[in-house]
Amino acid sequence: MRIVVDAFGADKGEAVIAQGCVDAINEAKDLEVVIVGDEQALKTELAKYKYDEARIFLVDAKEKITNNEVPTLAIRQKKESSLVKALEITKSDDSVGGMVSCGSTGAVLTGAFLKIGRIKGITRPALAPLIPTQSGGKVTVVDCGANMDCRPEFLEQFALMGSCYMQARGIENPRVALVNVGDEDKKGNELTHEAFERIKKLPINFVGNMEARYAMSGKYDVLVCDGFVGNVLIKSIEGTAMMMGKMLKQTVTKSLKTKIGALFMKKELKGFKSQMDYQATGGAVFLGVKKILVKGHGSSNALAVKASIFTAKTLAENNLVSSIEEKLAAVLPSEGEKTVD
Amino acid sequence: MRIVVDAFGADKGEAVIAQGCVDAINEAKDLEVVIVGDEQALKTELAKYKYDEARIFLVDAKEKITNNEVPTLAIRQKKESSLVKALEITKSDDSVGGMVSCGSTGAVLTGAFLKIGRIKGITRPALAPLIPTQSGGKVTVVDCGANMDCRPEFLEQFALMGSCYMQARGIENPRVALVNVGDEDKKGNELTHEAFERIKKLPINFVGNMEARYAMSGKYDVLVCDGFVGNVLIKSIEGTAMMMGKMLKQTVTKSLKTKIGALFMKKELKGFKSQMDYQATGGAVFLGVKKILVKGHGSSNALAVKASIFTAKTLAENNLVSSIEEKLAAVLPSEGEKTVD
Repeated sequence: MRIVVDAFGADKGEAVIAQGCVDAINEAKDLEVVIVGDEQALKTELAKYKYDEARIFLVDAKEKITNNEVPTLAIRQKKESSLVKALEITKSDDSVGGMVSCGSTGAVLTGAFLKIGRIKGITRPALAPLIPTQSGGKVTVVDCGANMDCRPEFLEQFALMGSCYMQARGIENPRVALVNVGDEDKKGNELTHEAFERIKKLPINFVGNMEARYAMSGKYDVLVCDGFVGNVLIKSIEGTAMMMGKMLKQTVTKSLKTKIGALFMKKELKGFKSQMDYQATGGAVFLGVKKILVKGHGSSNALAVKASIFTAKTLAENNLVSSIEEKLAAVLPSEGEKTVD
Repeated sequence: MRIVVDAFGADKGEAVIAQGCVDAINEAKDLEVVIVGDEQALKTELAKYKYDEARIFLVDAKEKITNNEVPTLAIRQKKESSLVKALEITKSDDSVGGMVSCGSTGAVLTGAFLKIGRIKGITRPALAPLIPTQSGGKVTVVDCGANMDCRPEFLEQFALMGSCYMQARGIENPRVALVNVGDEDKKGNELTHEAFERIKKLPINFVGNMEARYAMSGKYDVLVCDGFVGNVLIKSIEGTAMMMGKMLKQTVTKSLKTKIGALFMKKELKGFKSQMDYQATGGAVFLGVKKILVKGHGSSNALAVKASIFTAKTLAENNLVSSIEEKLAAVLPSEGEKTVD
């Protein structure tokens, strides 16, 4: 199994990319990694580690696409960029299972759309990150920002892809819910009303509407919504967690007494913090393109890079792309054709 | 100043309504309260307290509107219900500044719309609750569930009403933001693009787009969005706070050692919890109708009932309705007429 890694985009630079790749191949003996980026800088970083050199390939690419560029223009014009080169290798090399990039979300999604292409029958690929649940599991939110204005059939496709995604992650019968303003069937706006009627006919485990309050309850594996709502959902959760963490820290460091109290539960407070940690979850997956594409956080550390590589590897091994294709072919034989725009 | 209170709808019944009203008039000597509900039950509850009997009036109403009824039908048919009677008194009695109900949100909003009526120029009244901020203040979210499908001009009206609302709560120059997927001007979906262009022309302190992550940062006083997004925003925050509270409790009660640790910071942990407490914020306000209408939580305790009454009193004293009318008249002289539908 070969995974391509775009070396540009992580805030911490080549250092975390190199370390993440080395850790990944040292842990998985059947894994090869192709790193696309500044070859010299990567060599310097890689020289710090011991690893099987036959399983890391370097492809030089000096050009970079940043957050400040218009994605479509950048993808078309910067042919020597690490992102464009990585996408082209991922598309053309059959031995490549998938790709990881921590670069500009807009550029990565646009690039995947243009260079790798959509699965037949998918109108709009969708970004699917994972958030932690109360029960120690994970739930994915599809779409989480790739599609601002959605039609009901997009949400139908998100539901189907989300179900296949969590299945490829090892959940046998993923529980899929539609994000709504309450859990009754008739709740919502025009979009969710029609999406509800469509999703309930899919051969997936659709459990109905869900109020955002229960996103992390552990009762759901896939949350379906348009990209605007998905962004609001996930960013509200992040913001609240950050704020409460900060307030808690202020609380426990208020006085000598509370500091002593905190000492008694240092380990547990740390464990509490790590349950909230996004780094270990392994990036967001861009569902609906023809190869596995994992978008890592810009703030990724080496652990997060490794986790993203393993996510790509697992999903490729479990044939996520073909499982989406098969499910689509089975349920939307004619619609699949129609909805390509 | 006279405030009408619908005695039906609080989960804890007449007990919390009676106590909340007594506490309110004992605290504010210029306040009179009209309680509409089961007179006998209210008398029994009121008999438990010492208060100035000349300032609490009872209006008997035995019929109730529950959460399970279709709001429009219930409002039209149940003329003897506490809600309908309370709305009629609020509308017709000029000495009444506003009204409080903890009943079914749908029925209260529909009832206010039909019985009290909209301010001229307001197409859709909006529900505006308060959420706590990191800096110890409050921020309002307009709309938070009254309007599922919105046009850009609705959001424009929400921005204007939200600004007037926070001004009436004592904020001199409320900072109004549009909820979006990032803070750059061009971010968002079709609705927010057009709403942005409209809101920026209003004579309010519009500070631009805001990502949901910063909702509780304390940098904003008014967050503008459609009712679907507002519900997702607020329920995500509630859900995350609930989950983290539960996880924290599990953490601090894990072992004898952590329990000892928690003892050292009992007071501070309690303070932390109270900062997250919704009961003291005084309900959500239904902006855009011709009288002040405060929707209390169904789970309100006496403190929350009192806070809701004071919210109604303050907003009436600060002439919220006429300040919205004036601002609308100044900025939307012709549009005000057009948008009434």
